[in-house]
Amino acid sequence: MEGDPPLRLRIFDLNCWAIRYLSKRRQERIGLIEDVLRREGFDLVLLQEVWSEQDYSDLKAKLGTCYPFSHYFRSGVIGSGLCVFSKFPILDTFLYQYSLNGYPYMLQHGDWFCGKSVGLLVLAWGGGHSLSAPHPCSHQLHAEYCREKDGYLPHRLVQAWELAQFIRHTSKAADVVLLGGDLNMHPQDVGIRLLRGWTGLRDAFTEATRFEGCENGCTLIPKNRYTVKTELLPFPLGIRIDYILYKAISSFTVKCEELKTTTGTAPGMDIPFSDHEAVMATLCIQRQQQAGDATPNTADLMLVDVVTEARTEVAVGLRAAQRQRYSTGRMAVLALLLLLVLAVAALGTLVGLTAEQPFPKLSFSLLAFVAIGILLLATSLHLFHTMEVKMLQGTEEQMQRALRALQEHP
Amino acid sequence: MEGDPPLRLRIFDLNCWAIRYLSKRRQERIGLIEDVLRREGFDLVLLQEVWSEQDYSDLKAKLGTCYPFSHYFRSGVIGSGLCVFSKFPILDTFLYQYSLNGYPYMLQHGDWFCGKSVGLLVLAWGGGHSLSAPHPCSHQLHAEYCREKDGYLPHRLVQAWELAQFIRHTSKAADVVLLGGDLNMHPQDVGIRLLRGWTGLRDAFTEATRFEGCENGCTLIPKNRYTVKTELLPFPLGIRIDYILYKAISSFTVKCEELKTTTGTAPGMDIPFSDHEAVMATLCIQRQQQAGDATPNTADLMLVDVVTEARTEVAVGLRAAQRQRYSTGRMAVLALLLLLVLAVAALGTLVGLTAEQPFPKLSFSLLAFVAIGILLLATSLHLFHTMEVKMLQGTEEQMQRALRALQEHP
Repeated sequence: MEGDPPLRLRIFDLNCWAIRYLSKRRQERIGLIEDVLRREGFDLVLLQEVWSEQDYSDLKAKLGTCYPFSHYFRSGVIGSGLCVFSKFPILDTFLYQYSLNGYPYMLQHGDWFCGKSVGLLVLAWGGGHSLSAPHPCSHQLHAEYCREKDGYLPHRLVQAWELAQFIRHTSKAADVVLLGGDLNMHPQDVGIRLLRGWTGLRDAFTEATRFEGCENGCTLIPKNRYTVKTELLPFPLGIRIDYILYKAISSFTVKCEELKTTTGTAPGMDIPFSDHEAVMATLCIQRQQQAGDATPNTADLMLVDVVTEARTEVAVGLRAAQRQRYSTGRMAVLALLLLLVLAVAALGTLVGLTAEQPFPKLSFSLLAFVAIGILLLATSLHLFHTMEVKMLQGTEEQMQRALRALQEHP
Repeated sequence: MEGDPPLRLRIFDLNCWAIRYLSKRRQERIGLIEDVLRREGFDLVLLQEVWSEQDYSDLKAKLGTCYPFSHYFRSGVIGSGLCVFSKFPILDTFLYQYSLNGYPYMLQHGDWFCGKSVGLLVLAWGGGHSLSAPHPCSHQLHAEYCREKDGYLPHRLVQAWELAQFIRHTSKAADVVLLGGDLNMHPQDVGIRLLRGWTGLRDAFTEATRFEGCENGCTLIPKNRYTVKTELLPFPLGIRIDYILYKAISSFTVKCEELKTTTGTAPGMDIPFSDHEAVMATLCIQRQQQAGDATPNTADLMLVDVVTEARTEVAVGLRAAQRQRYSTGRMAVLALLLLLVLAVAALGTLVGLTAEQPFPKLSFSLLAFVAIGILLLATSLHLFHTMEVKMLQGTEEQMQRALRALQEHP
């Protein structure tokens, strides 16, 4: 391919905010997305939050001629919401579900029910080029609901670590790796630095030769009519949480020639595609003789700091999870003791040891039911937090191993 | 390495059956395992069902001098039970938890609580050899509790498929891939044929130049005092469900020189290591000039049959899961209706519409509690079976894609 004209790859990435019955003007917006995808003819389209399989099927049916290959990743109760449309054949897919993803009882946040995942695609493209098997992933990490007191940070860091490890282990034979999606993290956040440092992925926004769109590449902006304005109060320009990241492995180079975002509305319309802005990148891929991704020692030293910072946050999460495991366990034991006392009292009455009932029948059975309810709930939570502790411990250990390796062989 | 003496790799694999308080003479048996590991000095030790982290820590402390590198994989409520001891540095680890693993309400089987997983290790070894980064995995699939009416077959097939996909995607840059563990499948079962066919892994038992041990390489035998004799009645020689599988990628060859199993007791003792027999392999690894793993077309044709068979079984499981999703959903709706009727009756009494209560207070509140209990239980089950349906659908789709690829480009 050296000497060949470079391959230009046009990518479209969007968090679609398409929740049935809940998202405003969903079908109209899906229609707009369909229009732009057909008009622009991208090579690869990465969509998130397409929660309804019906929406995916509709898109697939209508986009079939421009994008003959597509895939919907299934996971969790609601689904992963991830889908991909491609001009290139999809050779293989693989789904990795994060081991931690919020709490099932935080119904108002709902992340747990989505089974958040990273979807791996292996694509092949030809046309005279010998480039093969890149690994674009489309995915989303746990949302941040309160930046000041972010209880989900340890979970998001476990996810960022697992995502980085997944990319490292699955991309060894790939020519080009692409990662697109809503990462729910600001560019300077520890999770993004960890992901980028540990995988060597580069940020299309900072690398782009030409940029056109929202200031600072923001993808959640106050100007968009569907964003929650109060959440963006500390950020008058908005925040950047949707990314296209890439790297070349083996003997290829990738450059981002152009990056664009929408700016609050769909082009030429008065409503936006979604509450997020779409990110569109043009990557230029070329074969070269030498591997060009040698990481300098300074990067390794910075990586030590980033992994240490992430590990500290995971350790904080671990202690919180251990406390919750303990308190839910204690609650379950107390409920069990109460049930035993009630059982003894009931037995006593039955065999006639005590002349009168200790309680009226109604209060007695109410108390028994409440105790059973608490016992079941506390036991479930205890099991859940036990799993959480295990996964946080496992991640902390892996990070420790990574740190040791970085310090021993910088 | 061509012309170099071949590298001999000695591997020990055992399902340890070490459940705290439940497994018989656990500590004594762990002591025996420790003795043999120290005496024999294997290169790599893959242990399963080490459910107690304390047992792992004890082994680690005592084996530290012979096996300086080790790892315990954490997952699920109880833990994955997987641990590894190695003479070679462990560069990296990665855990993949299967998306389906039995049912939480099948408490007597308990598989769901273990968070069954495949653990990936990246090892490096030197000593003049240029061999690097093999991927030994130690893992276990869902147990088979009744061979005649095996309700877990679809789950086990999803696991076998995910395991095969995990190996394919993570081993592309490895020189040698090793997989050791209790696969809970007989050699001719569709899951094993799927795993071997889809990954190209070879079975150490069938490939071994020398074999010493139980007839047919069985690892669950009636002679072992801890096996359940009634389960083995249809198999007088026992069954083979513990495997060491391997393949060479890039320009290496792997041969199994010797395979051994224990034969009902630990060597020279009167009790066995576990209810399973230990499997010990000596692999001979050598560099060669040409890649030697070209798969003939006949293998591809057989693979089409195997994937088709597996897909049919997954489809059967999918229909069962859809039925369960429907019936639990219906149950939840009925419980909700009952609650509504009770609420209307209670409100009616409160506002004085009906002169008398429709039920005595006690029966009324008992009925309400039962309805709430059924509602909660049925909803949880409905959510669980919804996830199950999604994962089975996803696997079926992936298998369909694989079949298409096999048929289009045999």
